[in-house]
Amino acid sequence: MTKTNRRGFLCAAALAGLPAAPLQTSAQTADATQPARDVTRTLARYLVAARAGDLPAKVRKEAARTLLNWVGCAVGGSRHETLDIAIAALAPFSGRAEATVLGRPQKLDIFQAALLNGISSHIFDFDDTHLKTIIHPAGPVASAILALAEHQPVTGEEFLHALVLGAEVECRIGNAVYPEHYDVGWHITGTVGPFGAAAAAGKILKLSEQQMVWALGLAATQPVGLREMFGTMTKSFHPGRAAQNGLTAALLASKNFTSSNQGIEAARGWANVLSTSRKYSEITSDLGRTFEIAGNTYKPFPCGIVIHPAIDGALQLRKAHQLTAAKIERIDLKVHRLVLELTGKKDPRTGLESKFSVYHAVAAAIARGTVGEKEFGDAAAKDPELVALRGRVTAEVTPAVAEDQVHVFITLKDGRLLEKQIDHAIGSAKNPMTDAQLEAKFATLTEGVLPPRRVRRLIDLCWNIATLPKASDLARAAAG
Amino acid sequence: MTKTNRRGFLCAAALAGLPAAPLQTSAQTADATQPARDVTRTLARYLVAARAGDLPAKVRKEAARTLLNWVGCAVGGSRHETLDIAIAALAPFSGRAEATVLGRPQKLDIFQAALLNGISSHIFDFDDTHLKTIIHPAGPVASAILALAEHQPVTGEEFLHALVLGAEVECRIGNAVYPEHYDVGWHITGTVGPFGAAAAAGKILKLSEQQMVWALGLAATQPVGLREMFGTMTKSFHPGRAAQNGLTAALLASKNFTSSNQGIEAARGWANVLSTSRKYSEITSDLGRTFEIAGNTYKPFPCGIVIHPAIDGALQLRKAHQLTAAKIERIDLKVHRLVLELTGKKDPRTGLESKFSVYHAVAAAIARGTVGEKEFGDAAAKDPELVALRGRVTAEVTPAVAEDQVHVFITLKDGRLLEKQIDHAIGSAKNPMTDAQLEAKFATLTEGVLPPRRVRRLIDLCWNIATLPKASDLARAAAG
Repeated sequence: MTKTNRRGFLCAAALAGLPAAPLQTSAQTADATQPARDVTRTLARYLVAARAGDLPAKVRKEAARTLLNWVGCAVGGSRHETLDIAIAALAPFSGRAEATVLGRPQKLDIFQAALLNGISSHIFDFDDTHLKTIIHPAGPVASAILALAEHQPVTGEEFLHALVLGAEVECRIGNAVYPEHYDVGWHITGTVGPFGAAAAAGKILKLSEQQMVWALGLAATQPVGLREMFGTMTKSFHPGRAAQNGLTAALLASKNFTSSNQGIEAARGWANVLSTSRKYSEITSDLGRTFEIAGNTYKPFPCGIVIHPAIDGALQLRKAHQLTAAKIERIDLKVHRLVLELTGKKDPRTGLESKFSVYHAVAAAIARGTVGEKEFGDAAAKDPELVALRGRVTAEVTPAVAEDQVHVFITLKDGRLLEKQIDHAIGSAKNPMTDAQLEAKFATLTEGVLPPRRVRRLIDLCWNIATLPKASDLARAAAG
Repeated sequence: MTKTNRRGFLCAAALAGLPAAPLQTSAQTADATQPARDVTRTLARYLVAARAGDLPAKVRKEAARTLLNWVGCAVGGSRHETLDIAIAALAPFSGRAEATVLGRPQKLDIFQAALLNGISSHIFDFDDTHLKTIIHPAGPVASAILALAEHQPVTGEEFLHALVLGAEVECRIGNAVYPEHYDVGWHITGTVGPFGAAAAAGKILKLSEQQMVWALGLAATQPVGLREMFGTMTKSFHPGRAAQNGLTAALLASKNFTSSNQGIEAARGWANVLSTSRKYSEITSDLGRTFEIAGNTYKPFPCGIVIHPAIDGALQLRKAHQLTAAKIERIDLKVHRLVLELTGKKDPRTGLESKFSVYHAVAAAIARGTVGEKEFGDAAAKDPELVALRGRVTAEVTPAVAEDQVHVFITLKDGRLLEKQIDHAIGSAKNPMTDAQLEAKFATLTEGVLPPRRVRRLIDLCWNIATLPKASDLARAAAG
């Protein structure tokens, strides 16, 4: 018997589709209390039955904040070269131009709009973060359903509800496999994103329970995103493609395109194939009683969370003492070890590199009084004032300093020593961005893309999403 | 420090995109001789430099056979409910109707045509098989480039070359990770398919080396297909979506959408994340000197390869002795153990189940003299003649019988005992389908979909693909 034949015959095993034992198991983290066969259906049943009227006020409020942050990021990223390129490559093949590319004048078909809005909302790494799993929940979900809302009538209340459910599905599935799934090398936003987009779009399409099961199965079979792509345009492609995949899944399922009944939990389903562990109760427990979106967070600065405390401290000292770069003799930081492991670049030469320099970030905070995308641009990385100032910043790893803490010491040329300890940086779970801060972030992101009056109107539409007769008004207001 | 904060800060690690060690390793199968950093670029360099004129005649011939088989399968599957549903769900969003859905009257945009042709070519599980990896090479590649050939001028020679290169890329990457990657639970045709489609479309788009590297990276980040989906419509979705993903990757790369330079081999690249082992020399050795498509095979019967020997034997005995069901007392098979493990269903009730019944398949061979898609339909599964005959078939596992062998004994009512031993079933690597048999298969598949004269013309176009001024003529001739 030849090797070729032996392998050839394996094909028959594949065709027979026989059940198989889980191929990657981890006894330590497996959850014996939840029968693995009901996970996908339990989730689908909940999604189909859920009613917008049952959403707690706190959840509605956080969903509006999530939406505001997402629209701001998408409009802000909309003029980036990444979008220009994607549009140049794909728009010639667009279908009916019915869905808005936020911040842009043109409409495209709903799949392309979903892709492009998902890309632009992630370009600056400035979007929302579900801290337990580092999923960016809004991108895949909001991109899919906003496009769908321009294809068929969707009320603001339906939209809000679908956004909550989509984020719920993403984050619960993420909770079940994090961090092992992420450690394998998957960009979790892109791999759970199709589930969230499928669930949200499926809710809007009023899928039956069986159709929702199939939609989740179709999402399971289309994961997107290797972490290897970080640092390239393909990173922001992930949430966009996830949105498309989930939208495709929901539309196919709405016409009864069949899929597995156990796409998530089967022996060769998503969780077994893409993760080395799984805790299914994270997906099925307390559905409708807890809401993951309630713990969503928003970054105040477009860079790794690890250097947010230092930026926060520097900005606070600057404001309290009217600091300028010229007044500074030196800046000394006591930081957690991750700060130097991840953002220890002494002399970043490009804007992208500067995101990984705590020295640059603190210098920008002092010299400019704001740390936005501009401060991480190529020009800022080469700005002589920033280059000089960051050369006078030191950072020392200090075991007593926790990850969301920093101790900032600034020595002024006049001899004074200023000091600030940050215990929970702005934007962290214990010190969330206020509504006003989110509005200010939105204004900064959209500046130069949309006229100021439209910015105000768009902010108001986000806050009042639940009362809009047509969710698509949001998209129209965000057109460039 | 809270758990939430600890995890939140991992986000910064992600953002920093720092290099990491391979997360899944297998010392036994790792290949130390090939530096892992040049795999993607070596492949891209070869693809960009390859010239159609350098293809050996044998490779050209096998590519034409591959094409003929693929077109037949796609036309044959085009009237299936799976296609109806996918078209109903997606066609309303189609862009410019420039690409043919084979066997159908309508054109759709190139992405949708690529998806639908990929689906229909896999619906019957009747497409080509690369035996070393059980990849079905044609679906993702041909679906992508035939659609592209209807968007821009592509000669038949270019088309043939791109088909060869696309299959080469799929199968080499498959060779590097098979069987471990398949064992993890991935449907390998859908996971390597995007690479093949990207390479083939990228060749037609005349990508530079760097663009081809990016196209492969964009393909790496879009794998499709869990084996859990087998037995549902989503299985045939996999090669279709793979075609779309690869086409999207090539088009984005053609406009300089950036991606990783090491999408295949990086620590968090495709091979490390999606497989527990990898042999990179399978990808980079002997490029341009060996061609995987030369070993492509084609199924004579639309069912698991494991029962092909038994069908072959029964058909040969029927022909030699003018057998009919009425003449048969009993049929006894000596088979390899996999035959009963995989296709041991005694009394299949549906067409799909009947594909997993060696008893049914042999009964159909004797009673009908042909074993095609019709013999595995719901009607055939319930046909009283077949039900009665299959009840008189036995199968016994015999250690001396290899996987591509069978020993068939037929006892006739007149007392005679007929006997046939098959050593290499028709369609196996050692006994490939002849051109005439491929044409007959094509005719059966396309019967009732296309008029006979068009069938003949289409067969001729496939054989003569290399001489066509426009490859799109093939698509036009295959329109329903």
